[in-house]
Amino acid sequence: MKGELKGGYVELNFSQRLYSRNFGRRENSKLMLTLEESSYLMSKGTLEVYEKGRKVELPELLKRAKLTEYFVFERLRESGKKVRFGEFDDYVPVSEREVLSFEDLEKFAEKRLAVVDEESDVTFYRISRFDDFGRHEEKLREVRGFLCGERVIVEDVEIFRKYFYGTEKSGYVALSLVESLYLLEKGFLIMDEEEAEELRSAVDENLYEVYRDLRERRFMVKTGFKFGSDFRVYEAVRSVKELTHSKYLVKLREEVSMRELAGDTRLAQSVRKKMIYAKVNGKPRYLIVERVRI
Amino acid sequence: MKGELKGGYVELNFSQRLYSRNFGRRENSKLMLTLEESSYLMSKGTLEVYEKGRKVELPELLKRAKLTEYFVFERLRESGKKVRFGEFDDYVPVSEREVLSFEDLEKFAEKRLAVVDEESDVTFYRISRFDDFGRHEEKLREVRGFLCGERVIVEDVEIFRKYFYGTEKSGYVALSLVESLYLLEKGFLIMDEEEAEELRSAVDENLYEVYRDLRERRFMVKTGFKFGSDFRVYEAVRSVKELTHSKYLVKLREEVSMRELAGDTRLAQSVRKKMIYAKVNGKPRYLIVERVRI
Repeated sequence: MKGELKGGYVELNFSQRLYSRNFGRRENSKLMLTLEESSYLMSKGTLEVYEKGRKVELPELLKRAKLTEYFVFERLRESGKKVRFGEFDDYVPVSEREVLSFEDLEKFAEKRLAVVDEESDVTFYRISRFDDFGRHEEKLREVRGFLCGERVIVEDVEIFRKYFYGTEKSGYVALSLVESLYLLEKGFLIMDEEEAEELRSAVDENLYEVYRDLRERRFMVKTGFKFGSDFRVYEAVRSVKELTHSKYLVKLREEVSMRELAGDTRLAQSVRKKMIYAKVNGKPRYLIVERVRI
Repeated sequence: MKGELKGGYVELNFSQRLYSRNFGRRENSKLMLTLEESSYLMSKGTLEVYEKGRKVELPELLKRAKLTEYFVFERLRESGKKVRFGEFDDYVPVSEREVLSFEDLEKFAEKRLAVVDEESDVTFYRISRFDDFGRHEEKLREVRGFLCGERVIVEDVEIFRKYFYGTEKSGYVALSLVESLYLLEKGFLIMDEEEAEELRSAVDENLYEVYRDLRERRFMVKTGFKFGSDFRVYEAVRSVKELTHSKYLVKLREEVSMRELAGDTRLAQSVRKKMIYAKVNGKPRYLIVERVRI
């Protein structure tokens, strides 16, 4: 087929075959194709484009096209999805260079980010809201603790052996600051009032909000340091052995670069966990991000 | 054994058994222990400490101790290493909260970072200089390319199929900016001079320096986007199938937080690659970071 490049569109004689495949917009006896649709058909050898008698090459069209959208269109089409250009169903075209705020990601919940990387390859990530509950149970007893630098030292080792708080050392347990504040607020950690005050002011507020919320949802929560994240989260832990198998990794984030998102989901997936981004603004909100195939 | 807390040290009668195990400093008939050494011996039930007749509890000592160093000392000792406090052989105690510059990391090359996380657990990372060469071979031919946004479009697909540059699309190959600049500089990419100029100014200089250096060391280099890094690096690629098995991940970094380092090495290890940090300042320098057990 032949088309004529005019004012940002390629005009050709109306083709029912193309139109029914969701290409172009009908205008009387003509079919108007976007530059991206034309590029796609040209790359498939279906279309030739002319401008004032001169044949236009593919790179000339691509140069003027919206390329992030184009590569997503091409990829979806080649996967058999007859999407119309600009309407990508539940797919959201994004460049690798973009940084999305937590709120942006939330808007795309239940949709899929289609991220175009620097080699123009497209990778898909599903965003879903997370609002689940765990099944962790504990019957704590009071312990006495002492603030030492950035941890609280407790001499009753049951708090680790039975309830998995902190890390057991020889003869004592070292609790993290968020764990300590949680136990203090719930009345199970007895501390000197001055030290308690120091503890309260040492804890990152948002981090603590998320920790407390997840604990109140009956998840078991430990540090995610070894996975480069804030927390690792278990639905339930019944023995110390089970501490190697957390289900989620949680990172608090105001915004996320697409590259960080790609790295995070890759790490989570390779250790069979799910990646959760969290944000505190009132009640904490959570989003699961997963790489998906289409 | 009993010791007396005095001016930041615990003093006890000289003990040959402790001294030969690398504890303390001899002063005539006395053995002077640091607070950290005393805490360790106390946690093992070997030592009781008194201050003016009053028994001192472990948390009181820990409160005044250097805790990052203490936890590393404890961990090394418990692994059977008779390190003297403050001299940790090739181990460098670091808190999870630290951010090290590339130059700091370089200073620790061939040593091991002993990172104390918020739960007071210690994880070890070996830093080594990287100065290797690959075995990748290619006999390129000239291709014509067109700059389209943040990539160069080439209609000769051999550049991907035979030499693995860019991504093959239907009927063309999309090259990344660094790939394009490399091919341009080597004389294999023919471009309009104006577009070539635009390409040169669009490429991140440091990123390009590392790309070129690795290519000149005969590695094959592709984007590391899906692993959240700058590049993935192959010793050699002979077929498109081999593109799934890169050996290294490379991130350019001026500085690295211990948490990022933990996440990066965890990701690299879980996909059986090695993590490399790179810095450009003159000739690019590289460091491999690996999590190790002791």
